Amino acid sequence: MQQLDDAALDLIFRNARTHSHWLDKPVGDDDLRRAYDLARMGPTSGNCQPMRVVFVRSKEAKAKLEPALSAGNRAKTMAAPATAIFAMDMEFYEHLPRMFHDPEARSWFAGKPKAIATNAMRNATLQAAYFIIAARAVGLDCGPMSGFDNDKVDAAFFAGTSYKSNFLCNLAHGDPARLHPRNPRFEFDEACVIA
Amino acid sequence: MQQLDDAALDLIFRNARTHSHWLDKPVGDDDLRRAYDLARMGPTSGNCQPMRVVFVRSKEAKAKLEPALSAGNRAKTMAAPATAIFAMDMEFYEHLPRMFHDPEARSWFAGKPKAIATNAMRNATLQAAYFIIAARAVGLDCGPMSGFDNDKVDAAFFAGTSYKSNFLCNLAHGDPARLHPRNPRFEFDEACVIA
Repeated sequence: MQQLDDAALDLIFRNARTHSHWLDKPVGDDDLRRAYDLARMGPTSGNCQPMRVVFVRSKEAKAKLEPALSAGNRAKTMAAPATAIFAMDMEFYEHLPRMFHDPEARSWFAGKPKAIATNAMRNATLQAAYFIIAARAVGLDCGPMSGFDNDKVDAAFFAGTSYKSNFLCNLAHGDPARLHPRNPRFEFDEACVIA
Repeated sequence: MQQLDDAALDLIFRNARTHSHWLDKPVGDDDLRRAYDLARMGPTSGNCQPMRVVFVRSKEAKAKLEPALSAGNRAKTMAAPATAIFAMDMEFYEHLPRMFHDPEARSWFAGKPKAIATNAMRNATLQAAYFIIAARAVGLDCGPMSGFDNDKVDAAFFAGTSYKSNFLCNLAHGDPARLHPRNPRFEFDEACVIA
């Protein structure tokens, strides 16, 4: 295969939508594992893979998440069968001797807070985007959200660790009947130039 | 279509690789436009779409980019038919009245430098990841890179604008014969937990 066909492009890009209302259909361990096993293959700087994920699915875990949610994100998130907390390991560089072929790679980051912060954020976010596309590719719908209190999530889920939250994403089967019209996108010539 | 088939998943995730050596095959305007037209459909916070892209393809533009490249990224980038400068518009919020259905959206960011910086970086990076997957979906190979001098790129390409560089990505048809073995990835249970 050289290119995806139209049906595939529709599924992962053109018809895929951010959902807020869900069908009564569970999200299983297998769905989450399949999406991660695809997403993890995506490229990161020096293969650093800083993304860590908590899939919030139990009543107990949802109750821990609830106080951190903004008002506008609360109902849909509490109703979603699963919500990913996309996080990043701020000590990601400790794994580079195993993950990257260049033995010097750890030294690009260790002791350099600015390089750590930028690369954790950039690469964990790339991985979260790969996950969103991968989730759609295995038949899930996504509802990514930045509207929450990162500090509260970090205190509730990551106290005493080197992990920090990045953003959240509901994972479910969306109800197509309850979608809003799609917001516009920049045309190529508004956002891009060929130089 | 409910899910991508194995051949499609192989193309965009499982067999896709970061390339450094290129086949003698051009990258046309159409390839870049097709990839962008898919990538732009991906979700961003409040549909803010901060990503801007310069596709460096001419000799003149390549010569402007060269001094900013790290030694290890120079030869492959100068040899690539196209190199994307993935950038972000730090005034992305000025477009929200057009791009998002909530008229309050501009006020979430305007005058708030920390919210601007975090959201520009997070969302432009999400969009760049969508672009990488979209480029693969239309038959291109990608070579993303953080090893370059952002300030030099900004001075050469974005002086006097509100744009800042994020990272670079060679776009080409990779030579599969010259790939290194793939570096390892974290297993699900190393990077994820179902709570």
